[in-house]
Amino acid sequence: MSGKTSKAIFLKAYPAGMPEPAGFEMRDIDVASPGDGEMLCRTVWMSVDPYMRGRMRPEVKSYIPPFSLDAPLEGGAVSEVIESNNPNFQPGDYLVDFAGGWKEYYLTKGERTQKVDPNLAPLSSYLGVLGMPGMTAWAGVTQILKPKEGETMFVSGAAGAVGSVVCQLGKVKGCRVIASAGSREKCEWLEKEAGVDVALNYKDYKNAGQLTKALAEAAPNGVDCYFENVGGMHLEAALNCIGFGGRMALCGMISVYNNKEAEPGPPNLTNMIGRGVMARGFIVSEYMDKAMEFAGEVAPLLAQGKVKFQESVYEGLDKAPEAFIGLFKGENFGKAVVRVGPDRA
Amino acid sequence: MSGKTSKAIFLKAYPAGMPEPAGFEMRDIDVASPGDGEMLCRTVWMSVDPYMRGRMRPEVKSYIPPFSLDAPLEGGAVSEVIESNNPNFQPGDYLVDFAGGWKEYYLTKGERTQKVDPNLAPLSSYLGVLGMPGMTAWAGVTQILKPKEGETMFVSGAAGAVGSVVCQLGKVKGCRVIASAGSREKCEWLEKEAGVDVALNYKDYKNAGQLTKALAEAAPNGVDCYFENVGGMHLEAALNCIGFGGRMALCGMISVYNNKEAEPGPPNLTNMIGRGVMARGFIVSEYMDKAMEFAGEVAPLLAQGKVKFQESVYEGLDKAPEAFIGLFKGENFGKAVVRVGPDRA
Repeated sequence: MSGKTSKAIFLKAYPAGMPEPAGFEMRDIDVASPGDGEMLCRTVWMSVDPYMRGRMRPEVKSYIPPFSLDAPLEGGAVSEVIESNNPNFQPGDYLVDFAGGWKEYYLTKGERTQKVDPNLAPLSSYLGVLGMPGMTAWAGVTQILKPKEGETMFVSGAAGAVGSVVCQLGKVKGCRVIASAGSREKCEWLEKEAGVDVALNYKDYKNAGQLTKALAEAAPNGVDCYFENVGGMHLEAALNCIGFGGRMALCGMISVYNNKEAEPGPPNLTNMIGRGVMARGFIVSEYMDKAMEFAGEVAPLLAQGKVKFQESVYEGLDKAPEAFIGLFKGENFGKAVVRVGPDRA
Repeated sequence: MSGKTSKAIFLKAYPAGMPEPAGFEMRDIDVASPGDGEMLCRTVWMSVDPYMRGRMRPEVKSYIPPFSLDAPLEGGAVSEVIESNNPNFQPGDYLVDFAGGWKEYYLTKGERTQKVDPNLAPLSSYLGVLGMPGMTAWAGVTQILKPKEGETMFVSGAAGAVGSVVCQLGKVKGCRVIASAGSREKCEWLEKEAGVDVALNYKDYKNAGQLTKALAEAAPNGVDCYFENVGGMHLEAALNCIGFGGRMALCGMISVYNNKEAEPGPPNLTNMIGRGVMARGFIVSEYMDKAMEFAGEVAPLLAQGKVKFQESVYEGLDKAPEAFIGLFKGENFGKAVVRVGPDRA
């Protein structure tokens, strides 16, 4: 069987600040017939994630190489196998892998690929609560913060794909959870659905001093665990309220990712010294050997309704840049996913 | 026996920025005769330490209360027992305690007091390499950084009481050690006596970018362990050069202690995320249950000449403010101590 033509999104230039739609271009690419050991896959859902911004900054040393300007972008996706010369995968199988994003069709040898069951959970959830963001949340909570019952946890970016799972794991562990998100609607969902104790709409606070005051009121015994997704005034407020022996899981600092000029860090890092605070930056891949443990803990919580999730669905591959840019504008609620093709072909 | 008159140093007002000699005052105080369980002690050596600046900032929540303006300052000292109503201590005993600094005579119940042997090591060393600064260095290295043989360690404030011990423990653990200090003389001592691999005179570098370049050259495989005494451009350079899985022990940030306006933190904290870096602030009291382990490891290294030390000696109690202020001006080399009275009465 001959190859296919696929639409795919290219990056035209590395963005200097906030990415713009004009920086992306949808082009047609040829996808050859699968060779020995290869399979042809059709992308069903693709993921947009904040870490991708880091791959658009080629001058910074990081844990993954920057995107190439001469090839389609790539990222996590749920795909259906169309043709297979790989004995481990059959046509009709669904899988999650890290090559399928930003395109309709692609070839893979299935090396960074995992089969998923479309009957067990919605396919898109394998990009969110049961996928990389959920695993990120779980790793930060269980491997870094290690909250004890009765402790207070503060979560920034709390309505996002990672933060929303952090909040709910915090509640499962018996913590008082203070969440910060960027709209009244998000805060309502966090308090009513996700069960956090207090949700702060950070847009009500003009600076770190105001946010500190609100956080201190919501956390009268201080913050024991801080899960950092945002940076900036959130980190400063957390450092003001953190208690003796506090822990901070540094997962992201989305507020600074698009700055053209490096933004200074918080002026109160010395609080870490007097209060014996530990901060640990991390990327989820470090904990991949614990993926089964994650699934074993979070999948039942999802089934029991103890972990809920929200999705922002963008329809069509051409909407992928908009979905990605929305990450940095606080426009997405829960996990942002793009439906590239129908669930069942 | 009736009481004694003692000279003692008082703080007249909390300093707004860099402390000044005029902010201190030597006054005569009456020291009563020791009551039941008490002893009268004579201060031989007193310690000045950077943490004392934090006790002059009453508005900041910390692990120890601020100094009172209506009482003599206090701090670590080596003292001789003159009279004793405490069965555990006899006249002529020498001890280290946390009440004896900044005065000639004082009463104590011996609750935060440890006997020391004047024949085993110089009495002043119990305030330095065998005392709190040495224990701080040991705790940061062994309990936080946990360096592996062949790793690279970067130490700021490396010629100070803590830093100089950190450097030498790093060498004992088999690390490549890069030290930063503030004069050519200090750098020479670090390379020739303390045995570090490269000593950088930070005064040769105007900003974090220049210091980063020098550090990157000295640490071609990146920095695995960073011992932070200074803050500011040192922390920024360390974060630029830190490798994947790096650890940072945050012991002090002396460059920012006297700022009137809070100084922003480093703009590159996001490096902690992509590189999986752990930072841990600490104060030595957290590890006091390991004091015997510290003494068991460091005292033999001192005896074997594998750990050397320098002292800046100030003669006379009236020089104590000058010794203290010198801490923040980089004027002291090694441990700063004040001789309050003769070693043997």
